[in-house]
Amino acid sequence: MPQQNTFNRVTDDIILALRLIVGENNVLTGQAREGYAKDETPNFTPVLPDVVVRPENSTSVAQVLKLANEKRIPVTPRGAGTGLSAGAVAVSGGIVMSMERMNHIIEIDVANFTATIEPGVILSSLCQEVEKHGLYYPIYPGEMSATLGGNVATNAGGMRAVKYGVTRNFLLGLEVVLPTGDIIETGGKYIKCSTGYDLSQLIAGSEGTLGIITKIILRLMTPPGRRDVVLVPFDNLEDAINAVPHILKEGILPIGIEFLEKDVVRLTEVFRGSETPLHNYEASLMIILETGTDKESSDLSTRVGEICLEHNAIDVFVASGERATDLMSFREKAWPAIVHSGNADIADVVVPRSKIAEFVKSAREISRKLGITTYAVGHAGDGNVHLAPMVPEGTDAQERITQFFRQVFELGVSMGGTISGEHGIGSDKKQFIDIAVSKEKLGLLKRIKKAFDPNGIMNPGKIFDL
Amino acid sequence: MPQQNTFNRVTDDIILALRLIVGENNVLTGQAREGYAKDETPNFTPVLPDVVVRPENSTSVAQVLKLANEKRIPVTPRGAGTGLSAGAVAVSGGIVMSMERMNHIIEIDVANFTATIEPGVILSSLCQEVEKHGLYYPIYPGEMSATLGGNVATNAGGMRAVKYGVTRNFLLGLEVVLPTGDIIETGGKYIKCSTGYDLSQLIAGSEGTLGIITKIILRLMTPPGRRDVVLVPFDNLEDAINAVPHILKEGILPIGIEFLEKDVVRLTEVFRGSETPLHNYEASLMIILETGTDKESSDLSTRVGEICLEHNAIDVFVASGERATDLMSFREKAWPAIVHSGNADIADVVVPRSKIAEFVKSAREISRKLGITTYAVGHAGDGNVHLAPMVPEGTDAQERITQFFRQVFELGVSMGGTISGEHGIGSDKKQFIDIAVSKEKLGLLKRIKKAFDPNGIMNPGKIFDL
Repeated sequence: MPQQNTFNRVTDDIILALRLIVGENNVLTGQAREGYAKDETPNFTPVLPDVVVRPENSTSVAQVLKLANEKRIPVTPRGAGTGLSAGAVAVSGGIVMSMERMNHIIEIDVANFTATIEPGVILSSLCQEVEKHGLYYPIYPGEMSATLGGNVATNAGGMRAVKYGVTRNFLLGLEVVLPTGDIIETGGKYIKCSTGYDLSQLIAGSEGTLGIITKIILRLMTPPGRRDVVLVPFDNLEDAINAVPHILKEGILPIGIEFLEKDVVRLTEVFRGSETPLHNYEASLMIILETGTDKESSDLSTRVGEICLEHNAIDVFVASGERATDLMSFREKAWPAIVHSGNADIADVVVPRSKIAEFVKSAREISRKLGITTYAVGHAGDGNVHLAPMVPEGTDAQERITQFFRQVFELGVSMGGTISGEHGIGSDKKQFIDIAVSKEKLGLLKRIKKAFDPNGIMNPGKIFDL
Repeated sequence: MPQQNTFNRVTDDIILALRLIVGENNVLTGQAREGYAKDETPNFTPVLPDVVVRPENSTSVAQVLKLANEKRIPVTPRGAGTGLSAGAVAVSGGIVMSMERMNHIIEIDVANFTATIEPGVILSSLCQEVEKHGLYYPIYPGEMSATLGGNVATNAGGMRAVKYGVTRNFLLGLEVVLPTGDIIETGGKYIKCSTGYDLSQLIAGSEGTLGIITKIILRLMTPPGRRDVVLVPFDNLEDAINAVPHILKEGILPIGIEFLEKDVVRLTEVFRGSETPLHNYEASLMIILETGTDKESSDLSTRVGEICLEHNAIDVFVASGERATDLMSFREKAWPAIVHSGNADIADVVVPRSKIAEFVKSAREISRKLGITTYAVGHAGDGNVHLAPMVPEGTDAQERITQFFRQVFELGVSMGGTISGEHGIGSDKKQFIDIAVSKEKLGLLKRIKKAFDPNGIMNPGKIFDL
């Protein structure tokens, strides 16, 4: 990695300069750095940054970046550290820039349905605040303690993508500090824009490699009336997946359609200490509906059930109110349950949604050949499949897991998909980027990176090596 | 413009080489070029390209670009030529690459709700074809004869943006030929992606300056049940605009909310030879609703009317079926009616939607001071305002129009908006780009351009000069 050779260490002089910029209490050295050495990536060996800085505003961010750029010191932006691909870890050393103090909700604009916030705002805080104003931020990546800065940086998705899409679909504008210290604004409180390249959309999903997000303008909506869950068991995953387009084809747009298989259901039941109606079925769909009225809810759930029964469903259970919330929470606990059951790793492939069953079947075959137990859980409505291979015993364990990832990523891409739907590439999946991105395209991505960051100081070692 | 100096002319040798690539019939010289010298930009003096080529596939596109790149010859991609900012005109000479032969609908994927098409497909053809499959492409920029390639290149918006957004919101993936001749793919049949920078979104709205789009994957939906129009007159535009958030706040999401003022209504009535209920009112809203059933339609129209009456509306008219279609067509004819009435130019400012009335009022003031008659018409639900200044008589006419544009653009930007919501900058509004884009940001845009197009051959002289 030639890039890393050109970086310098953080010296005492630099520490002094950083203290002058952000204040003594906001420059962390020694043990105080320990909370910044990893995120939630499985099987990741922590890496201590040279120093952690906690800026309070974009001016400080710009000063730190200017200094780091001059001195050739890597800067890794960090939100709540809930990522799953080691994107917020300073794998090349240098400065971790924690956005935790930039956690203010600047404005909720009720006339224009927008929220203007700092990047360190936690998703749960945003949701509470917009609710107070009678509004709603619908993107729910499944981790309420994540920051919105991190959500934008990874283009976080989640369980409501069928209806609402992903973070980028609710992103209207950004303030971004470039590695050179320049502060730019992109977008604004409007949906329509044909005025130069859309940098908000370029920065969304760029995992902190292009600049530091210091302000975010998000689109808001009105809250849904009520939410119901239709639980539908099938004989096998293929039947479940095949039912999905029939639901959507009738103009029914659930917020999410999740699939669960028996092995994951049982693990999750054990983890939560309670059984579900899905206990005895090979595969099930969990169809989450938002409706305005009781009548609409009842009509829609009934129709969804009918459609599923016309397409090989075994049974239909409708849950409302607390029971619906509990089932959604059950689904959310699938990943913690898998992690709790042993040493799980995770892949985050996306394929065209019609290919999910075929993908999972072939991934199981790959898994079997490598002697690895793999759980699959995911988003049937949007093609995003989380595969959790359980790291086996033995000295070749890591090699087999790497083999597994490479093969399932190649499989996903061969089916018209890509290797990460919502977790990002970070440093954890970087070795596989060539599977999804051609040599020519990778060259272009690197040139774009260079256009933002001539010295390569922004979150180096993430997505690709320069 | 230093860039233009480095370009070469198209020689006879190059014409020969182009004929070998695309076939003799698809290299147009002489008079055959005349249809490619302008688009629908008002007051634009046509510019003949050196040559027009009409490739059939991405391989030919790549060969032409490779040749042009080697020989330093500008290439201007062109769809149907319906643009309003001279984006598809070869203002720096060289090759116009017309995508007219790449007009095939490659696939409608009913299971995944996607259309894969070539860039020269006309919007009306796409709509007809998806309808045959029981699906729906909802983005409607108001010009059914435009190509989808052009729609993507300008990130076209239109009258349905309140509910559906703009072209980029339905764009899933692209095949793009880079100026170097490399062919890359971005995105695919999926909504979720966190695998490197999103180049589809970067290329959307880049007005042909980064590469040639050779394939487009679009997201589709199910068709709406029925459409109704609620027409609501007010005493003034301010009252009309102020009613908008009250409608949206109740969770009612019309596909579009348009505003019309008396002067434009009367011009359009004369143009169409028929009167409307809006004839005597200063300002009106046209609220376009999509609903599933007659009951829902009636409930929703009634409620929208009530909300408007609670907020200073004078009256409410509800139109359904053919009458609704006729009213929407009336709104679409506003621009042709203005053009028909005299020598109109056009601005395409977007502001936060709550600011529309204030913006229009101040723009009128600017107009009055410059002695220019200006019509305003636009999208009250999304903040996009089309101002049509009527070019006055006299030798200083162009100077006054330029003054008008500069002042209304500065006004829009000062209100948190930007200078083009959907028409693009092209060459026509390029002189104003500094109003919307800071020096630092412009520098970044140029470096991004360079990352794609090192020799600056792709549609030079558009958006900004290098």
